Amino acid sequence: MKKIAVLTSGGDSPGMNAAIRAVVRKGIYHDLEVYGIYHGFHGLVNGNIEKLELGSVGDIIHRGGTILRSARLPEFVNPEVQKQGLEQLHKHGIEGLVVIGGDGSYRGANALTNLGFPCVGVPGTIDNDISGTEFTIGFDTAINTVIDAIDKIRDTASSHDRTFVIEVMGRGAGDIALWSGLAGGAETILIPEEKETIDNIVDRLNRGKQRGKRHSIIVVAEGVMSGVKLAEQLKERIDADVRVSVLGHIQRGGSPSATDRFLASRLGARAVELLLEGKGGRAVGIVKNTIVDHAISEIINQPHKIDNEIIRLAKELSI
Amino acid sequence: MKKIAVLTSGGDSPGMNAAIRAVVRKGIYHDLEVYGIYHGFHGLVNGNIEKLELGSVGDIIHRGGTILRSARLPEFVNPEVQKQGLEQLHKHGIEGLVVIGGDGSYRGANALTNLGFPCVGVPGTIDNDISGTEFTIGFDTAINTVIDAIDKIRDTASSHDRTFVIEVMGRGAGDIALWSGLAGGAETILIPEEKETIDNIVDRLNRGKQRGKRHSIIVVAEGVMSGVKLAEQLKERIDADVRVSVLGHIQRGGSPSATDRFLASRLGARAVELLLEGKGGRAVGIVKNTIVDHAISEIINQPHKIDNEIIRLAKELSI
Amino acid sequence: MKKIAVLTSGGDSPGMNAAIRAVVRKGIYHDLEVYGIYHGFHGLVNGNIEKLELGSVGDIIHRGGTILRSARLPEFVNPEVQKQGLEQLHKHGIEGLVVIGGDGSYRGANALTNLGFPCVGVPGTIDNDISGTEFTIGFDTAINTVIDAIDKIRDTASSHDRTFVIEVMGRGAGDIALWSGLAGGAETILIPEEKETIDNIVDRLNRGKQRGKRHSIIVVAEGVMSGVKLAEQLKERIDADVRVSVLGHIQRGGSPSATDRFLASRLGARAVELLLEGKGGRAVGIVKNTIVDHAISEIINQPHKIDNEIIRLAKELSI
Amino acid sequence: MKKIAVLTSGGDSPGMNAAIRAVVRKGIYHDLEVYGIYHGFHGLVNGNIEKLELGSVGDIIHRGGTILRSARLPEFVNPEVQKQGLEQLHKHGIEGLVVIGGDGSYRGANALTNLGFPCVGVPGTIDNDISGTEFTIGFDTAINTVIDAIDKIRDTASSHDRTFVIEVMGRGAGDIALWSGLAGGAETILIPEEKETIDNIVDRLNRGKQRGKRHSIIVVAEGVMSGVKLAEQLKERIDADVRVSVLGHIQRGGSPSATDRFLASRLGARAVELLLEGKGGRAVGIVKNTIVDHAISEIINQPHKIDNEIIRLAKELSI
Repeated sequence: MKKIAVLTSGGDSPGMNAAIRAVVRKGIYHDLEVYGIYHGFHGLVNGNIEKLELGSVGDIIHRGGTILRSARLPEFVNPEVQKQGLEQLHKHGIEGLVVIGGDGSYRGANALTNLGFPCVGVPGTIDNDISGTEFTIGFDTAINTVIDAIDKIRDTASSHDRTFVIEVMGRGAGDIALWSGLAGGAETILIPEEKETIDNIVDRLNRGKQRGKRHSIIVVAEGVMSGVKLAEQLKERIDADVRVSVLGHIQRGGSPSATDRFLASRLGARAVELLLEGKGGRAVGIVKNTIVDHAISEIINQPHKIDNEIIRLAKELSI
Repeated sequence: MKKIAVLTSGGDSPGMNAAIRAVVRKGIYHDLEVYGIYHGFHGLVNGNIEKLELGSVGDIIHRGGTILRSARLPEFVNPEVQKQGLEQLHKHGIEGLVVIGGDGSYRGANALTNLGFPCVGVPGTIDNDISGTEFTIGFDTAINTVIDAIDKIRDTASSHDRTFVIEVMGRGAGDIALWSGLAGGAETILIPEEKETIDNIVDRLNRGKQRGKRHSIIVVAEGVMSGVKLAEQLKERIDADVRVSVLGHIQRGGSPSATDRFLASRLGARAVELLLEGKGGRAVGIVKNTIVDHAISEIINQPHKIDNEIIRLAKELSI
Repeated sequence: MKKIAVLTSGGDSPGMNAAIRAVVRKGIYHDLEVYGIYHGFHGLVNGNIEKLELGSVGDIIHRGGTILRSARLPEFVNPEVQKQGLEQLHKHGIEGLVVIGGDGSYRGANALTNLGFPCVGVPGTIDNDISGTEFTIGFDTAINTVIDAIDKIRDTASSHDRTFVIEVMGRGAGDIALWSGLAGGAETILIPEEKETIDNIVDRLNRGKQRGKRHSIIVVAEGVMSGVKLAEQLKERIDADVRVSVLGHIQRGGSPSATDRFLASRLGARAVELLLEGKGGRAVGIVKNTIVDHAISEIINQPHKIDNEIIRLAKELSI
Repeated sequence: MKKIAVLTSGGDSPGMNAAIRAVVRKGIYHDLEVYGIYHGFHGLVNGNIEKLELGSVGDIIHRGGTILRSARLPEFVNPEVQKQGLEQLHKHGIEGLVVIGGDGSYRGANALTNLGFPCVGVPGTIDNDISGTEFTIGFDTAINTVIDAIDKIRDTASSHDRTFVIEVMGRGAGDIALWSGLAGGAETILIPEEKETIDNIVDRLNRGKQRGKRHSIIVVAEGVMSGVKLAEQLKERIDADVRVSVLGHIQRGGSPSATDRFLASRLGARAVELLLEGKGGRAVGIVKNTIVDHAISEIINQPHKIDNEIIRLAKELSI
């Protein structure tokens, strides 16, 4: 193998640049030429491909977003479109591809592998919703952004004796809500994986109030219900000044945390090793603090699971 | 004068604790006893008053919110309620009061002064919407919080070639939007003081696109229209991926910036001096980098003005 | 078991408050009374002990340092002094003790256990130099503080084409240097566990220069040599503007990261469980992302090991 | 005037990029061509000059350092060297130059102006030591970096009942120490402009201790004496655990604060206006919150003055 390429696809996440840098440097360390494909599978199909040098990835490890930019290309499920992508890769003499992104990106990588082109997936998404890895690149930064917001809102909640509903990202996966809620000291955490009734929430708030608790923070994953809707339901049921804050897109950005840069470096480097070892069709991940890899085809068909121990801990500590 | 008191009222703002600390330390420096009134005018009327020592304000200069907590008491416009407040002050032997807050708080301070009790107002609000001062305590921290959010969102905007609408606080005053928009490098800034048509905005976005600009950030003050509504209107008119982020309550919290701690220290200390000089009914402020004071009665009847030079500069730099 | 206590000892680390909070809340969840011992073993011997309630640990999860304060008491190796500590525990009816700290603190906990009083150790130190756990509470925050400093210094290094030597904490353990160096994108990382000659370092800097690299960042653990001394040696050997920055005590402080709050919550809660299960003399830790416990007596006699895979990765990525 | 140029010189400071951006955008707004000179006067003499477009300054407003890089060229006092610079400017058809930097940079700008080439100086330095302006670009960011460090160190100081000496930048000017010390709540602030005896400092520390103060923070400007030396002198005189932290180069870096981006935008834009008005040989600044300009020749011969009111306030609040 002489030439490999790397692309980022799907929603951007902090640490993608650190992963790109690791792919490029690890590749060059092994005397490979490394190409960058811009704008994800869209750029692949359109031949938006450039050679990357050591200097191309200098001073990017600390930057949010992705220097290769990203895009969604739903049409890539179409075999014709996939072939166009393959042609571009062949045209540049590229023999292996690292795809950094989430579930959708993995499906693209799997399709190319099935056509005989070796791809390795690297989990880059803030949602931590990919199977085969305990953590995705960007998740740690996202929960640090969320707890920073919770800390700020706590100032106001405490000064005004208010109840705050904070809506965080997470359509299907409650990891951001669960981790940031626990680390942020939230009294109530609502996640898609474990439904709670409004009655329960109201009970807990009332018990806290009786114990002298004057302010309260509720973290809700967007997949459960909107923060605005939850706040409205609470206002009808409890005697408190309830406010809502929807954190939104700030959760995707920012300079990656040390943990995300570190994880991205390890995973990006391992992806290159797999290509060198001739193991296409794998997705790298971290499990039990060890870098592992699984077949992409398995990963994309397995649901991500939330850690029930953590749910229990969150409940015990939020009494 | 032997005893003075201090309270915070209205929405909390970062730097209020630094102002409280300055009042207490400056008072003690001049051999005064200083009392803290908890929960604003509500606490005043209910006698929620405690003596503060040097140690009471130790290690608080860097904390957001207010250790005296805050509350709103619309009933304080009622002379009967004001008299109850006065009685509490007399009961504790307090002879002067520093009121830290916004416009509503100033009205309370003015009412007490009119009843013969000397009050001094200190401008504490993130909105920068108080007359008689170029800057309010909390404004600098708020705009730093906003530009931090803009910087994060820029990562995603740039990675995905998107247009982002960012809604910031400011019902009647556009200062947060104008300053943070300019400092955040926003292409378009919408403020209540200067209405712009959707046509204008669309034109500017299209011109930028023709020049090769692939992402764009629009900062809109909540007083103009909601970010969601603006985004909807834009989506109908331009061919771009428009997203919206409503920053909300994070803008009120956080550790105060150096400038806010500094301003709060100067204003809090000056408020004590005014009480010692027998000058009740004044509001302190900073004008042309000099600490000044005006009659509260004037302040509460004057609208806050936005700086037209800054509006012009923002336009010239966002070409 | 009805009453337990908690103390922090040795150098403070971010997340200690989150661990205290977890001990208190988990204890109360299981109907225990929880006591706080102030100023470490010094306070234990002097009976500086107070009951903690849910409210005592409210709004502390995000604070650096330790609300129980810390101290060193070398005299605690003396059996007479240990007995005085035991007497204080008996006097208050306390039946188990959670000790949060580093190696020295563990020795104290081990001594008390040997005298028949069940103690559980929780690893709280930024240095990540405790055996039996892959991560200590405070380490993640410390490396985030370091990479934030590296990012700032990179601005100047890049603007002036300079070589910077950054000295970080770590007398015997190179983890802070290794992790922050890798995550900060440093070109050279010097740790006590793997000595490198000045010749090697100079060679690498010269190779980088020949490749067009105009600035360079070297992270050195204090245990290798002082940053000042290293800079002097480099200045004699290479033609570059070499500057040095000693990060010092800022590495110990700051609001704990999400990961540290999370880890502290898990470990603090598990420590209480161990006491409830009658398992004194244990130290909790995280190994392969699972909460584990070992005999304290083993932990204090085992050296901490650095991960050789990470050393190799750092070298490959810093070509 | 059709073509102007901009360079940064001397020590870099956060906000220089925002100033460069403002010069470029304001210039293009007025239909000028704007050139960037790389590596300061060194690059000027060597013809390291490139045309800048709107896109060249996109996404840089939030970046520390300077995209034009900086350098020192002491030889620029030599008229022969100045003429080489002039020739380069003439060769490119450049008719006016904006010089962003400190005192040394102003001397270069003044020399060129005296040779008939109109230059305008923009004060970019963290030290706030330039006459003719109350604030320099980078000062606000630097003091925010310092108070962030003080806040972190306070965690440890408070947890261990320690006295900390924090050495900050400032050879001749005490502004960084004075502002950050006041905003950081330091008990003692030592600046070059007002010498204090060790006896005084020791007295204050002892008085604080008698009042129950258990930890203390001393901020010292490097121009007074080294933090290490001060700590040694204190250790000989007081019974306390004294530690020292030298903040060093982190003070120069980081994403600029809102205030610095704002000030840089205003000053950079005004510099272009002055060139357009044919007013070379001026230095812009902010005085009483108004953008002003003075003759560079005056500025470089006037000492910067510290605000005595602030010194007095710092003393009164640190009782």
